[in-house]
Amino acid sequence: MKALVYSKSGKIALEDRPKPEITAPGDAVVRVTHTTICGTDLHILKGDVATATPGRILGHEGVGVIDSVGASVTSFKKGDHVLMSCVSACGTCAFCRKQMYSHCIHGGWILGNTIDGTQAEFVRTPFADMSLYHIPKGADEEALVMLSDILPTGFECGVLNGKVAPGSSVAIVGAGPEGLAALWTAQFYSPATIIMIDLDPNRLAIAKKFGATDVIDSSDGKAAKAVMKLTDKAGVDTAIEAVGIPATFELCQQIIAAGGTIANIGVHGKPASLHLETLWDRNIAITTRLVDTATIPMLFKTAAAKTIDPALLISHRFTLAEGEAAYETFGNAAKTRALKVIISPS
Amino acid sequence: MKALVYSKSGKIALEDRPKPEITAPGDAVVRVTHTTICGTDLHILKGDVATATPGRILGHEGVGVIDSVGASVTSFKKGDHVLMSCVSACGTCAFCRKQMYSHCIHGGWILGNTIDGTQAEFVRTPFADMSLYHIPKGADEEALVMLSDILPTGFECGVLNGKVAPGSSVAIVGAGPEGLAALWTAQFYSPATIIMIDLDPNRLAIAKKFGATDVIDSSDGKAAKAVMKLTDKAGVDTAIEAVGIPATFELCQQIIAAGGTIANIGVHGKPASLHLETLWDRNIAITTRLVDTATIPMLFKTAAAKTIDPALLISHRFTLAEGEAAYETFGNAAKTRALKVIISPS
Amino acid sequence: MKALVYSKSGKIALEDRPKPEITAPGDAVVRVTHTTICGTDLHILKGDVATATPGRILGHEGVGVIDSVGASVTSFKKGDHVLMSCVSACGTCAFCRKQMYSHCIHGGWILGNTIDGTQAEFVRTPFADMSLYHIPKGADEEALVMLSDILPTGFECGVLNGKVAPGSSVAIVGAGPEGLAALWTAQFYSPATIIMIDLDPNRLAIAKKFGATDVIDSSDGKAAKAVMKLTDKAGVDTAIEAVGIPATFELCQQIIAAGGTIANIGVHGKPASLHLETLWDRNIAITTRLVDTATIPMLFKTAAAKTIDPALLISHRFTLAEGEAAYETFGNAAKTRALKVIISPS
Amino acid sequence: MKALVYSKSGKIALEDRPKPEITAPGDAVVRVTHTTICGTDLHILKGDVATATPGRILGHEGVGVIDSVGASVTSFKKGDHVLMSCVSACGTCAFCRKQMYSHCIHGGWILGNTIDGTQAEFVRTPFADMSLYHIPKGADEEALVMLSDILPTGFECGVLNGKVAPGSSVAIVGAGPEGLAALWTAQFYSPATIIMIDLDPNRLAIAKKFGATDVIDSSDGKAAKAVMKLTDKAGVDTAIEAVGIPATFELCQQIIAAGGTIANIGVHGKPASLHLETLWDRNIAITTRLVDTATIPMLFKTAAAKTIDPALLISHRFTLAEGEAAYETFGNAAKTRALKVIISPS
Repeated sequence: MKALVYSKSGKIALEDRPKPEITAPGDAVVRVTHTTICGTDLHILKGDVATATPGRILGHEGVGVIDSVGASVTSFKKGDHVLMSCVSACGTCAFCRKQMYSHCIHGGWILGNTIDGTQAEFVRTPFADMSLYHIPKGADEEALVMLSDILPTGFECGVLNGKVAPGSSVAIVGAGPEGLAALWTAQFYSPATIIMIDLDPNRLAIAKKFGATDVIDSSDGKAAKAVMKLTDKAGVDTAIEAVGIPATFELCQQIIAAGGTIANIGVHGKPASLHLETLWDRNIAITTRLVDTATIPMLFKTAAAKTIDPALLISHRFTLAEGEAAYETFGNAAKTRALKVIISPS
Repeated sequence: MKALVYSKSGKIALEDRPKPEITAPGDAVVRVTHTTICGTDLHILKGDVATATPGRILGHEGVGVIDSVGASVTSFKKGDHVLMSCVSACGTCAFCRKQMYSHCIHGGWILGNTIDGTQAEFVRTPFADMSLYHIPKGADEEALVMLSDILPTGFECGVLNGKVAPGSSVAIVGAGPEGLAALWTAQFYSPATIIMIDLDPNRLAIAKKFGATDVIDSSDGKAAKAVMKLTDKAGVDTAIEAVGIPATFELCQQIIAAGGTIANIGVHGKPASLHLETLWDRNIAITTRLVDTATIPMLFKTAAAKTIDPALLISHRFTLAEGEAAYETFGNAAKTRALKVIISPS
Repeated sequence: MKALVYSKSGKIALEDRPKPEITAPGDAVVRVTHTTICGTDLHILKGDVATATPGRILGHEGVGVIDSVGASVTSFKKGDHVLMSCVSACGTCAFCRKQMYSHCIHGGWILGNTIDGTQAEFVRTPFADMSLYHIPKGADEEALVMLSDILPTGFECGVLNGKVAPGSSVAIVGAGPEGLAALWTAQFYSPATIIMIDLDPNRLAIAKKFGATDVIDSSDGKAAKAVMKLTDKAGVDTAIEAVGIPATFELCQQIIAAGGTIANIGVHGKPASLHLETLWDRNIAITTRLVDTATIPMLFKTAAAKTIDPALLISHRFTLAEGEAAYETFGNAAKTRALKVIISPS
Repeated sequence: MKALVYSKSGKIALEDRPKPEITAPGDAVVRVTHTTICGTDLHILKGDVATATPGRILGHEGVGVIDSVGASVTSFKKGDHVLMSCVSACGTCAFCRKQMYSHCIHGGWILGNTIDGTQAEFVRTPFADMSLYHIPKGADEEALVMLSDILPTGFECGVLNGKVAPGSSVAIVGAGPEGLAALWTAQFYSPATIIMIDLDPNRLAIAKKFGATDVIDSSDGKAAKAVMKLTDKAGVDTAIEAVGIPATFELCQQIIAAGGTIANIGVHGKPASLHLETLWDRNIAITTRLVDTATIPMLFKTAAAKTIDPALLISHRFTLAEGEAAYETFGNAAKTRALKVIISPS
């Protein structure tokens, strides 16, 4: 089968690989119909993710059709249309029992990381009963790829951890796909204000269309001042970090209201300064989280109820054979205006 | 009247001052019977607290007897025995309405800071109806001084924010009075493990008596390793920082379990490094808080039920005339083995 | 001044009364600009509310302009435009400290009940600092009357107690003003399904316009069956009782999903059967609540953000002189199609 | 093998049965070392539990040693010492994912109900990975039988649902084994008051030893009055129903404080009157729950930490051959003073 592989040269490469097989009784093999690229895939190509080694088929998002299941799989059978979670969960370990699937001691984020992933014609998914989800008939399957990772990430790490509430004020730093996913799902809770902060006017324009009440172009270095002005000097109740660098994390510290929460989504490569000398008495909380995808069933319901339309996050479409172009497009989002790019193996 | 004053020389000085008077209808004047010194008072003397200026009568803790009340005070009358909260709360601002009294826009921590405090024969307390508490007949009034600040601080900032729970594991970094207050009130929730970490073997011995299940002398720089060993490499569910320096805050980051909470009690003077490169995917929370003393009524009940005996935190006793010696003793705790020192003006 | 009084004959009567005066330092006297009638006022006229005796000026909702304030009032001054909460809260008792203002030991629901109310040209409001709210310039003051009681009631007793959540299913039994208030504020949390149940097709049509996803005419006695069909036999996550009779409360028991919550809004005059023989093992919760109006500040923010438009709940308008007609209209809602009727003394 | 069977005559009978075998890949067969009788078993014998039919081997509690496991079991192997939960949980259905194992759509309480149970030499346990728990070396295995059902029931249905908190007041109606389990685990949260109510002076004496601060003999019909006196007319914050009849449930309604919670543990056979005419405005919650045993891991930790000593709930011991006598003893607890009786097949 065809697959997109993290090659030794640090590039993505289209290669021929054997079709995966069931290796444990809880496995399923899924014929992938649509997958996508995540910012983490770009990190892997840069060599930033030690656990992902050259030769790995990338990808941890996608929808498809069950090709075969192991002996102990009870919820799925050949032919079922399924969504794949980016997290594989055994369901029985102490972390899984509290829905902290990301830290499953037998799974977690392994797809396209420590085992081969979804950017291929077929993929083997461990712990199928816990990690796959039935797609209802008539659903927009391509759009549901957004439920594998990006929407639960924005929602769980940003909105739920950030305790967004009716009437509250929210600032989201970073209007890339993750920030937009947070922007969208924040609206489940009807905050009065959602301020979107980014350097890219194009992304801010999209944010405005997606429901931001205010946008701030931070290229002048005065974003904190602008937020304080918008909030009558109080700061925001929730600050969501969706970039992953010290500067944006420190911006969150400057704009957080007393009693507020800074919810981190960004993948960070180095420490940030935590200004305890000003924050120790401010009654704030700071949270981190690797997405658990525990909210996928709920997101299915909101998608079915048309509360959200995940398709709006899709900007480009490619075939698997065009995979290298897809990476090119997604990797140069500032220029290509890419949000999420769909790759359709079949 | 006699009072302990933050003098221009940066020392504490016993001075003669006029007896305070009611200046607002919500005020009370209290004849102080017992007060104490807080670590914050030492910070003021060092000039670390910009809002507290020389000439200020110090002290924000204490019990006493109502001497007079303003026209709008309804819950108290002359002769009532009362506990004074370290926080003055108007009760009506947005922060007070959510029990975040520390951030009251008309009050907060003002006693012995921006207005004269309790280390005197008399003190004026604003917002008496919200900030004073009736002492039940027959209570150990001296012991209740521990409810003005230190016990609610350990409990609210450490134990509540830290989400201590039955069967959970807790580490407390710093076995001074604040750490001991956290140690004690953590036991309200029956954690399975409470590990106390300090450099001072004397304090660790006291911690053991106060209910620590394990103690670690961190003078060898290997405290993190020791905690990981005690917790089968998982780390602790709750890490409470009760020192206030970068090194101890960073220790908390090394020992926190995935899904755990770092609850800060310490008063910090400079930033700490936040290791987001290792913590971003660990599903942790970090909290800060200035004590709100919202739990004083609850602490009264636990004291009445003998769940805790606040008197055990008292190590020394002085008269107001001996105030300078009291500061000397408290300021040299390593040598004097002081915990909390009581000053009794009358 | 003119006032609407609960007369000895059990009717509402327009009477001349002396203008109220400040009697406690925390009081304000408010010139009423708009008020409204509550279902509870009808109960009083029927003699159902023992605490409200003939001679009482009715009304516990309204907006107006401050005429005078007592000596200890700090947040308001003559000329301020204010919203009046239906609940008067001292702010300092144990109940008020946990925002359970409805059970304030010095106040609670007293306006138009144990003291004279708002259906008059002027009203004395105790505990002004805690019980009045500034109206921002430019707001639709008439519409804000809905924030005195009905919107916080639907929200606090129905939606918050009922734990309405994104993607969840909700049924509201009773499409009168309270049920509509719950319907509206439930949408703050983006449930996937809101089923409205009533006997009156007109009210169901309004419910549909206000955001109900499904409506059930229960006049055939088969509402439970219809709900189970709509929810694939699971029942609803939240059932809100907004009528106040045993039959509707028992309907809620029939349609609640395992793990769900029945949130009572209705004012009940007699016991209902609680079917513990079927519910004991269903992991459900049942809640009751007298509105605390603790969410008025939040509702102000959502109104300012246009998340809700309270004006849509207003169906009729009267002057104070037409007060008897206003009661007539509101009391015959089935015929007049009244929702909330505004009475404007000035 | 020998087994205790619900016979056609409605009596318990010792019978010879074939040793159970693995029938699904997730099964385990456990050699039972200790089991016990539950009040529910007595209900089955009376014919009250429609799902349990004559011929069924009873019992849903116990510890033992793994005899064999199915092909997909990964956490257990032959020879492992295990605790068996009274609830079998598939781990993957919507209820299991939120730890509501009692409502597992493929399991739930089935042992000794719809499939053969633990009062035998061997038992087949479905969903072994989710429903069995490793017993640490050196633990008192017999005592851990109390963690199969009774301790999690008292804790989850009574204490957790009842929101017992430090300094709060609790009343437990019924001092049988379930009431005592609630009494014990309530102390995890350090309430100031735990009032135990029963008709049997012997059980009240035991309650006193187990930590009740007050006991009330309700045989004079004045228990409500006595509780109100003990609580200064406020009532209790938490009322736990541990009997299962209308009278005791109604007693809970009489003694609950405004803002409090009535947590039901009792198995009810008929409706109770819910006095909404007095409770509708009291801001209370009423909860029901079938035990989920989600807290077994936590209870293991508290047992290991010696916070609780489950062995104290054991009053009698029998062999399997003496099973009929065991039922006789447990069924006449008033006379025999039985708490939990252990049956040891091997």
